[in-house]
Amino acid sequence: MKIQTECLPCLLKRILFETELSTKEKKRQTKALRTACTLLAEHYNPEECSATIATKVHKGVYETLQDKDPYAKLKHTSNIIATSLVPTIEELIKTSPDPLKTSMICAIIGNILDFGIDGSSDHPQMLEEVFDTLYAEGLGYDDYQKMRNLLKKATHIVLFTDNCGEIVFDKILCQELKHFNPTLHITAVVKGEPILSDATIKDAKEIKLYEVVDELFTTGCFAVGVDFHKLPVEVKKALKHADLIIAKGMANYESFSETTYAPIAYLLRTKCSAIARSMNLPQNISAIKMYE
Amino acid sequence: MKIQTECLPCLLKRILFETELSTKEKKRQTKALRTACTLLAEHYNPEECSATIATKVHKGVYETLQDKDPYAKLKHTSNIIATSLVPTIEELIKTSPDPLKTSMICAIIGNILDFGIDGSSDHPQMLEEVFDTLYAEGLGYDDYQKMRNLLKKATHIVLFTDNCGEIVFDKILCQELKHFNPTLHITAVVKGEPILSDATIKDAKEIKLYEVVDELFTTGCFAVGVDFHKLPVEVKKALKHADLIIAKGMANYESFSETTYAPIAYLLRTKCSAIARSMNLPQNISAIKMYE
Repeated sequence: MKIQTECLPCLLKRILFETELSTKEKKRQTKALRTACTLLAEHYNPEECSATIATKVHKGVYETLQDKDPYAKLKHTSNIIATSLVPTIEELIKTSPDPLKTSMICAIIGNILDFGIDGSSDHPQMLEEVFDTLYAEGLGYDDYQKMRNLLKKATHIVLFTDNCGEIVFDKILCQELKHFNPTLHITAVVKGEPILSDATIKDAKEIKLYEVVDELFTTGCFAVGVDFHKLPVEVKKALKHADLIIAKGMANYESFSETTYAPIAYLLRTKCSAIARSMNLPQNISAIKMYE
Repeated sequence: MKIQTECLPCLLKRILFETELSTKEKKRQTKALRTACTLLAEHYNPEECSATIATKVHKGVYETLQDKDPYAKLKHTSNIIATSLVPTIEELIKTSPDPLKTSMICAIIGNILDFGIDGSSDHPQMLEEVFDTLYAEGLGYDDYQKMRNLLKKATHIVLFTDNCGEIVFDKILCQELKHFNPTLHITAVVKGEPILSDATIKDAKEIKLYEVVDELFTTGCFAVGVDFHKLPVEVKKALKHADLIIAKGMANYESFSETTYAPIAYLLRTKCSAIARSMNLPQNISAIKMYE
């Protein structure tokens, strides 16, 4: 997705959020906010992918803050809160007429664990507060049947994860994918370096994601979503041979929608107007959308 | 008020709003947005008044857009819509046990006619939609009695107006001030040049504000709120001799709160968290707050 004008104030709001997470020192905050504005002025270009620009701005801000992971505490809490909801989800799956679909809906609800933007959480506890409501709402856009048909005959899939906490539900999704198609080879990809509230290899190991997938890789670098120039060769290979790519969350959509990788299923909450418009979906829904 | 961190994304959101009002040309929009980011990076300083920084950024953006008044159409519509509500307000005043207070509440409701920020209107028509609700809500903070006591013995007051549309209700307020204290000398001050949705001398003349005030001046320049360095000498003189200053809206609070002018009554909707916090008021209320 190309950057939209409305991404600018939103990006600055997120930068402010992470700056205040990182430090209470006014001088350092000011320096970080000025850095962000300078980088926005320099890199804002409507012909450029939103995730690419966001990567440049966050990189500069992290460096100015001298903070490798402003979201560290939030990410940890997100994993704990999501883990506390696992029994609820397991019960929903056990009693579901379609366990795979139920696990997908839950993995999409986990996508609200994003911080500092409108339409997302203010705090990880929000996941507990809204889970039942969002579960009852179900999918606002539903390509599940298409996806299921593909998954039935698939041998290799690649899953690009998104946020901490959310990844706990992604693990359950992987388990259900294996139940649905036991011969399925799953490659999971987490972030190469801490970026926003996204899961890294440390988080993946913490929740033992390796127990339910066949391969676990990273995006290989610091990037919002995916920087395809820096993607490790083994991930590129997996993508090339995948019968289906599953991409969680908005930043992965922003990145993949600039490529020709297919077939791809986006599993996300449409938290912002720019992405909702780009995907031709209503805002603030849970969606499974396939591009073949 | 010193600029707060949250003012940055909010200011950029407003810049985006006026940029899209001004032009549909992508190139010009991009140039304006980049200019805004450059100026924010250059001028953001937590020791500086928010209105002063906003003035610099909007000035640069208006110049880049080569547009002296991006809000021209919205301002005109605001005046029309507010005028259509005059009979309603006159009826409320006629049947009120305290016509002056009623006129003040209405003049504060008019303060929602601000565009491009959260907590304000999306479109001038919103005034019609929310008028009854906001009138029923009344004042969330009420220094009216203090103000009334001062007005009873006052001989000179100065009124700093804010938005178009709102100024139609300010005219009614002036009429009621004169009914309340027929010897009161009212100096009204509008903006020196078009800035945001604020009323200028053109708007004041259009609604015949001169019919109900004794003097009508402008702030003398392009500024969000008031630039006291450029304030005409006659306004400075009026301020010095005023028994009470009435300042409408947030930008006038941002400017006056950096000065020692007193006594001053702020009549506004607390549309943003920064100003609500600074004034120690809840957000999104109608308020009369006096500083003596």
